[in-house]
Amino acid sequence: MDHFKLYGFTGSGNCEKVRMVADILGLDYDWIEVPIFDGASRTENYLDTVNPGGQVPAITFATGRALSQSNAIMLYLAEGSTLIPPDPFDRAQMYSWLFWEQYTHEPAIAVRRALIQYRGMKDADIDPALTEKGQDALALMERTLHNQKWFAGYQFSLADIALYAYTHVAPEGGFSLQPYETLRRWLDRTAEQLNG
Amino acid sequence: MDHFKLYGFTGSGNCEKVRMVADILGLDYDWIEVPIFDGASRTENYLDTVNPGGQVPAITFATGRALSQSNAIMLYLAEGSTLIPPDPFDRAQMYSWLFWEQYTHEPAIAVRRALIQYRGMKDADIDPALTEKGQDALALMERTLHNQKWFAGYQFSLADIALYAYTHVAPEGGFSLQPYETLRRWLDRTAEQLNG
Repeated sequence: MDHFKLYGFTGSGNCEKVRMVADILGLDYDWIEVPIFDGASRTENYLDTVNPGGQVPAITFATGRALSQSNAIMLYLAEGSTLIPPDPFDRAQMYSWLFWEQYTHEPAIAVRRALIQYRGMKDADIDPALTEKGQDALALMERTLHNQKWFAGYQFSLADIALYAYTHVAPEGGFSLQPYETLRRWLDRTAEQLNG
Repeated sequence: MDHFKLYGFTGSGNCEKVRMVADILGLDYDWIEVPIFDGASRTENYLDTVNPGGQVPAITFATGRALSQSNAIMLYLAEGSTLIPPDPFDRAQMYSWLFWEQYTHEPAIAVRRALIQYRGMKDADIDPALTEKGQDALALMERTLHNQKWFAGYQFSLADIALYAYTHVAPEGGFSLQPYETLRRWLDRTAEQLNG
């Protein structure tokens, strides 16, 4: 993999995912901090050369090529590595968790955390439907892990990294992990893989 | 590909995507209609044997294997076909659009359509922020297509099918496609591929 620039915001789980994958694979990159709350991902230059969608994370190469969407970047960086299951059905399960993470998990767990951490909202002011959606997501992860060690097939994969990113900081969004013993053991196993 | 059952709700773009891919590839499947507004995707049997997440679409095989998330199912069914670009960077762009579709496009375009079509809401009662998010998504697609014929690389791919599903019915959600001439030409090209 050629050297790339990783545009990200420290504290964003979506950006952390990409950094974790790049680090675990020992890739050569520079982290470019993007102060998103100052509008830095909405400047003309950022939209033109990094991501027309105005979001982080994104990566760019010296050739000018650019790629956005955290899970797409992970898939690209990890291609051919053990982070992507070789079996087609296991790989499909990994895709399924990646899409579920972006559609169901992140919009509840990460959004509630952002409301508290970045907008200073209090628990009581947050829509209970959002809280319930996040609790349902955590409960589904817990039930899934009763039957399997990792989310996709028999090995640690991008599905675990993607789900780890916002789950391990879920308490910052007011979600207690105390009721989810199996989930907490999986968080520990995943942290070992990431720091191993 | 072994015979499978495709659990879907007629009128759902997410379900239509999977059907379009299965049809274009000539796969052998049975469509099982799931009346989601009657709670049919939340029965104990559905959660246990089809999708613990309680959503459509999902597919099951005679072996008992099950897979959910529209874009993950498409990736699985289309593996090895021309619907997935062979070049790794083009493929990564396809992934990027698939995630963008689920995270940014669908939650605005499809959700606004559902509020009008299924909940009987009127334009004036819908959060203007949702409308703006949908318009921004359509405008980004329009700008992208000024420079390229298809969304990922040089060929028609799953990215086009995924984005077509809810874009071609966007007017049912109160989004006029009139301002987006390039986008409308892409819709026509995509329809030709799907019906060709």
